[in-house]
Amino acid sequence: MEKENTRPVDRQDAYGKITGKARYVDDLKYPGMLYVHTVRCPYPHARILNIDGSEALALPGVVKVLTAKDIIGRNHLPNDKPVLVAEVAKCAGDGVAAVVAETRALAVKAAKLVKVDYEELPAVFTPEEALAPGAQPVHGDSNCAITHKTVKGDIKIGFAKADVIIEREYSTQRAMHSALEPDGALVVPEADGITVYCPGKGPFNVKRAVAAACGLSENRVRLIQPAIGGAFGGKDCDINVIASRAAMAAMITGRPCKMTWSREEVLIEGSKRHPFKLKYKIGAKKDGRITAIEINGLADVGAYITKSKATIWRATVEATGPYNIEHVSTTITGAYTNNVYSDAVRGFGSPQVDFASESLMNELARELDMDPLEIRRINAYREGSVTATSQKLRSVNLIECLDKLEEVFPYHAKSCSTAPENSAPAQLENDAAVSGKISLRPGKVRGRGISCIFRGEANGAGVTTLDAAAVNMHIERDGSITVLTGIAEMGQGGSNIVLQMVSKVLGVSVENMKVSPLDTAYLPDSGATVGSRGTITTGNAAVVAAEDARKRIAEVIAEEWGGKPETLIFRDNNIFTEDGNKKISFQDAITICYTRIPGVFGYGWWSLPPVWWDFDKNCGDTYASFNYGACGAEVEIDLTSGKVDIIDLVAIHDVGKILNEPEVKGQIAGGASMALGFAMTEEVEIRKGQVKTLNFDGYLLPTTLDFNNFRPVPLEAKQPGTNPLGVKGIGESSTATLAPAVVNAIENALGVRIRNLPVDLEKVFAAIQEGERIGTIAGVTSSPMNHGARAETPDPQQYGKGGKA
Amino acid sequence: MEKENTRPVDRQDAYGKITGKARYVDDLKYPGMLYVHTVRCPYPHARILNIDGSEALALPGVVKVLTAKDIIGRNHLPNDKPVLVAEVAKCAGDGVAAVVAETRALAVKAAKLVKVDYEELPAVFTPEEALAPGAQPVHGDSNCAITHKTVKGDIKIGFAKADVIIEREYSTQRAMHSALEPDGALVVPEADGITVYCPGKGPFNVKRAVAAACGLSENRVRLIQPAIGGAFGGKDCDINVIASRAAMAAMITGRPCKMTWSREEVLIEGSKRHPFKLKYKIGAKKDGRITAIEINGLADVGAYITKSKATIWRATVEATGPYNIEHVSTTITGAYTNNVYSDAVRGFGSPQVDFASESLMNELARELDMDPLEIRRINAYREGSVTATSQKLRSVNLIECLDKLEEVFPYHAKSCSTAPENSAPAQLENDAAVSGKISLRPGKVRGRGISCIFRGEANGAGVTTLDAAAVNMHIERDGSITVLTGIAEMGQGGSNIVLQMVSKVLGVSVENMKVSPLDTAYLPDSGATVGSRGTITTGNAAVVAAEDARKRIAEVIAEEWGGKPETLIFRDNNIFTEDGNKKISFQDAITICYTRIPGVFGYGWWSLPPVWWDFDKNCGDTYASFNYGACGAEVEIDLTSGKVDIIDLVAIHDVGKILNEPEVKGQIAGGASMALGFAMTEEVEIRKGQVKTLNFDGYLLPTTLDFNNFRPVPLEAKQPGTNPLGVKGIGESSTATLAPAVVNAIENALGVRIRNLPVDLEKVFAAIQEGERIGTIAGVTSSPMNHGARAETPDPQQYGKGGKA
Repeated sequence: MEKENTRPVDRQDAYGKITGKARYVDDLKYPGMLYVHTVRCPYPHARILNIDGSEALALPGVVKVLTAKDIIGRNHLPNDKPVLVAEVAKCAGDGVAAVVAETRALAVKAAKLVKVDYEELPAVFTPEEALAPGAQPVHGDSNCAITHKTVKGDIKIGFAKADVIIEREYSTQRAMHSALEPDGALVVPEADGITVYCPGKGPFNVKRAVAAACGLSENRVRLIQPAIGGAFGGKDCDINVIASRAAMAAMITGRPCKMTWSREEVLIEGSKRHPFKLKYKIGAKKDGRITAIEINGLADVGAYITKSKATIWRATVEATGPYNIEHVSTTITGAYTNNVYSDAVRGFGSPQVDFASESLMNELARELDMDPLEIRRINAYREGSVTATSQKLRSVNLIECLDKLEEVFPYHAKSCSTAPENSAPAQLENDAAVSGKISLRPGKVRGRGISCIFRGEANGAGVTTLDAAAVNMHIERDGSITVLTGIAEMGQGGSNIVLQMVSKVLGVSVENMKVSPLDTAYLPDSGATVGSRGTITTGNAAVVAAEDARKRIAEVIAEEWGGKPETLIFRDNNIFTEDGNKKISFQDAITICYTRIPGVFGYGWWSLPPVWWDFDKNCGDTYASFNYGACGAEVEIDLTSGKVDIIDLVAIHDVGKILNEPEVKGQIAGGASMALGFAMTEEVEIRKGQVKTLNFDGYLLPTTLDFNNFRPVPLEAKQPGTNPLGVKGIGESSTATLAPAVVNAIENALGVRIRNLPVDLEKVFAAIQEGERIGTIAGVTSSPMNHGARAETPDPQQYGKGGKA
Repeated sequence: MEKENTRPVDRQDAYGKITGKARYVDDLKYPGMLYVHTVRCPYPHARILNIDGSEALALPGVVKVLTAKDIIGRNHLPNDKPVLVAEVAKCAGDGVAAVVAETRALAVKAAKLVKVDYEELPAVFTPEEALAPGAQPVHGDSNCAITHKTVKGDIKIGFAKADVIIEREYSTQRAMHSALEPDGALVVPEADGITVYCPGKGPFNVKRAVAAACGLSENRVRLIQPAIGGAFGGKDCDINVIASRAAMAAMITGRPCKMTWSREEVLIEGSKRHPFKLKYKIGAKKDGRITAIEINGLADVGAYITKSKATIWRATVEATGPYNIEHVSTTITGAYTNNVYSDAVRGFGSPQVDFASESLMNELARELDMDPLEIRRINAYREGSVTATSQKLRSVNLIECLDKLEEVFPYHAKSCSTAPENSAPAQLENDAAVSGKISLRPGKVRGRGISCIFRGEANGAGVTTLDAAAVNMHIERDGSITVLTGIAEMGQGGSNIVLQMVSKVLGVSVENMKVSPLDTAYLPDSGATVGSRGTITTGNAAVVAAEDARKRIAEVIAEEWGGKPETLIFRDNNIFTEDGNKKISFQDAITICYTRIPGVFGYGWWSLPPVWWDFDKNCGDTYASFNYGACGAEVEIDLTSGKVDIIDLVAIHDVGKILNEPEVKGQIAGGASMALGFAMTEEVEIRKGQVKTLNFDGYLLPTTLDFNNFRPVPLEAKQPGTNPLGVKGIGESSTATLAPAVVNAIENALGVRIRNLPVDLEKVFAAIQEGERIGTIAGVTSSPMNHGARAETPDPQQYGKGGKA
């Protein structure tokens, strides 16, 4: 990839977002538009006895009170959830009716007047409760929603060979996507079907869901995407629910109908990240070589399965971490509960197991008294390694990531201890902050931690064995270019990558191009913006499309000049002969084209190599390829309050090829920010099935102020990605590496390990107290004097040793 | 073409139009939308001295008064007309300012308050005045806007060989499109450009025009078509004007802006059909063989040239009629005048010259005392004939049309005389009315006339040498199909043809498909719905697209079954092996496809063979192919009032292949209806440059009640069209044949020829008086007694002989 293609390119979607001209779904208004608001079940498990909408309907301006009886098509969305509950609500927040009214305020008011009689049913709130004998089933006969396994070798043999075996348990919390734009949809009835305007990250999937719910053939539902205010794995199942409710309202009233959720509604009814409980047993030789690993996990699916199968499958196949282990047994079960449902959230499945496996690696290193980086290096996947699913890996750049980590992050003492004064100066920007000049403030301790991961790219065999996307383009007579892409721009910069690819092939400035808003009528189903598949699929499809157009142009110009079309060079908005003797501007070339051929356009379609999974034998080629990453975190902990500051964070990611350096760094930064919340602050509180977190005031998102120094390092390693562009998806692996590095750093600082996310103030404070108790840190919390005393002796030895000094 | 493909198919656009759910541009509303109204020059030629919008702006709710100074881009639309006049208005009705206001009523009111000071300039109102020495030029130095010629052989030699030479002059009037939906556009500003909603028949052209007017690159303007209420050659240049005015308003105000014209505005500012004056000189042998023809024509271009070049070019190359003539000279000049501008109207150029040439053929027949059908047959184009432009013809079915005419229309006596009692019974539907049972009513005479034509298909070399269109299709997972077509559905049924072609190739019911609304962002530029090119270009493109999809499907199913993909048969919503032993439903096949390939879609692009025209030598291959037609008309004339009733009308058209019989008959009927208005009732009156016809009360459109018996005969003749489908365009030739047949029938009844269209009541009445004077009919108008007397003797001999009996 030539250097010019990694240069920054203005984000085309930025202008509208900055000026306020971008129109989100809630900005869209149609004459005669109605507003739809959901009536929700307040109980975690309840049978609907009667719904009485008469009082609501008596309000002037209330048009309809819809219930499951009004559903025209199938009242069962893909992956389980009903449009509206027909008989039994399975969690608090389940939609049981929808009020359609002339204004939003009226719809909200009227929804409160809908009287629903319920019979409360017994409920289960944890996977353990759910799977206990005699538990009330949420669906069918059993609350075992899904169990995925991987088996490799024989763990008995593996553990028998081990010199050391440790067992640990970890847990992760219920988190959410936190897209600043809540979910919503506007549905407009047309003469021949309906048009859905909504920010679905998988527009083709939403189209199909709505078609089924409305009893329409798929070609009668068209989905057009307005601007999208983030998704982060969301804007998917919830959008299906919302769009289907709005669609039924539109079809029944014959008027445009809009439903947009408030933040509270997103919290109450919207999907969340799966909480996981993971038990790890690992055996290793004294030299650090892992001999066996046994993993048993339990995930809270909530009331509906949605994409739990895919999430838990990914967690299962990635649960070992990126290590060569001969004997593996992994079993992760998802259990139905009467909690709000869990679904894909950025990284789905990976952050949970990566937190556990990378915490475990440090625990094993401590047990073996080894350097945590060294133990990772010993076991790390290398080119040709075979995973727990018997997949032989290609394009493995983990060692390169670890090398880079060692190079740029001052971390090389044994057993989590770090000695910044000895560290090599960091090689990246913002060197100053990590140059080893430590000025520890009073009452603070510092620690450093690392982690590394592997992560499958794109959908993977657990979701679909086929994965493709389309990009088409039309070159106008004035040389400007309209690009159609099947991948939703959620803010991740995917559109820019597509434009860059066209730019690279045609040698035309990105400023000359425009991406047309995504419309399902445009292009073949190009899947969803999930699994970090966007750049890989549409980036390659864009190249195919641009090459198709280039061929058309080159043939005309070669005929004009004589010579072979394939030897022409497209560069700097010009076309040149190979020898540089002839030159024509791109625009002039297009003018000539239109005198010789009736159209200048290009069609592109690119599919990933097929993957496979054997659900009986629990093995397969899970993903077409994997990316790798390593993270180094330095934290400073206020021993008085337990507050953890991120002093330095290095996120190294194998991106295959860099297409747009600022964009890829932005993706890594965004992932890290989300991961920091996952690690330390974010948790949706739920008690007896009732969501207690109802807004961002109770759900703390990290901001840029929470990063004192952040160093994203996109790595172009030896082995490029296996697709033609050589690029790897980075949207999610960036979310998976940070949490264990931070927790390892906290352990490094305090000598106490926290195994349950998030590591919030309370947990850190408890760890400080524990550290004081066991003597890994000097007590400061009991006396302000100690605090002051430490402040006077900023001993570098404290660093990584806590109060041991 | 198999029979099943000619079966009637429900019109998909009909449902919306019948139920009122179809949304036309004037139905579209956006929040914050503004209305734009034009301020027009009342003088046919005037310099703008000052525009004062202050009084208008003082009205609350008036947002802007726009003038040419506000235009951001180029104030010169393609083909001449300005968005708003900057200095000199060239006709009454020219837009000089546009008022933007919160409501339409306010915009109209405010427009009247805009004070414009003019300096009136000398004006010219006829081509003769315009071309006279010393005339005030409308543009530049000369009012000669365009002259087209054809030259073949040497007319001196040709006339020298003639036994008979006659010279005649004909004229045609200013008519209009009469689409029931007036022109309009709504422009919505977007973050990255603008979206234009308008019923443009050439959406890609409008997009380009608006982009240039707004100073935007072409990819920043997207045009989406709402439902269209007819165009008939219009919805083109006027739409450019309207969309550009609305676009400048939208860009300047930043709000959605709509301009829709009233009928009066369409009449005052909208384009019209070119009035022609044509002088013919023709020489022939006694046996009827034509030896030479000389044609000189003059057309009123009006104030702006728009598509006059193309219209006059077509008229020039078709002016001889469909006859082998060795020596030809045709010259037609278009002159600028200060009248409202002329533009393409259905048939553009053909109806004018066909009226003249086919009137002339009857006059020549009378001169030679020959049967008018016989003289046509003697001279008619045959396979391999060479036109006046030196083009060798293929797929010539004129003789077949004449044979069919003779077979179904009782017309075979010499010299226009007909003897219905001897005629063979008609072979088509509604035989009764033409079965020879004539019951002539009192005071009436009857006559029969014929005509025949040839007409170039699609754009032709005078417009563009390249002509292509795209059709893409996506097959959804449920087997339903979304079809994208680049051709505007104006009501002509073009979308249905596309669906039928897909149906034919994939063997799937049309009900399973949907055509998505046209959007310029979808597809490559597929040109305009003009020149009867729709079915030829998109019909063939649809086949290419469907074959592309079929290949994908067949490969999967053949792999499933074993065997060769190309031998599979797609029929009746199933796929079969060649031997019929294996069968799968289309939907099941698609389900299988989606397990094997990631997408099922088809892309189609089809271009007509290139054509050429040498503007110096006045020769070339003008059109890729031609269609042929013949018409027979029987009229009954009330000798008291001059009222002409159409008793019987047979329109025979070489359609190459019939794809959809009801649709093609509908097209022929629509064309005939428009032609009847052209022949008899329609005329836009204009006096000293002022349009006097301001609504349909003064512009009489024929209705179904005006056809007592209409028999459209689409003919699948020996030589199919030269494109892969073998189909020929029929949208316009149907408009060209009727007028001369009716006028020849009137001449046949009265013995008096009318050479100026329309043959309205006054002209017919004058002809009756002339007939009485010269004795071709017995006088009835002078005395009611005569009327009664004739009524008592309904002598068949009267038939075609007027009062000679």
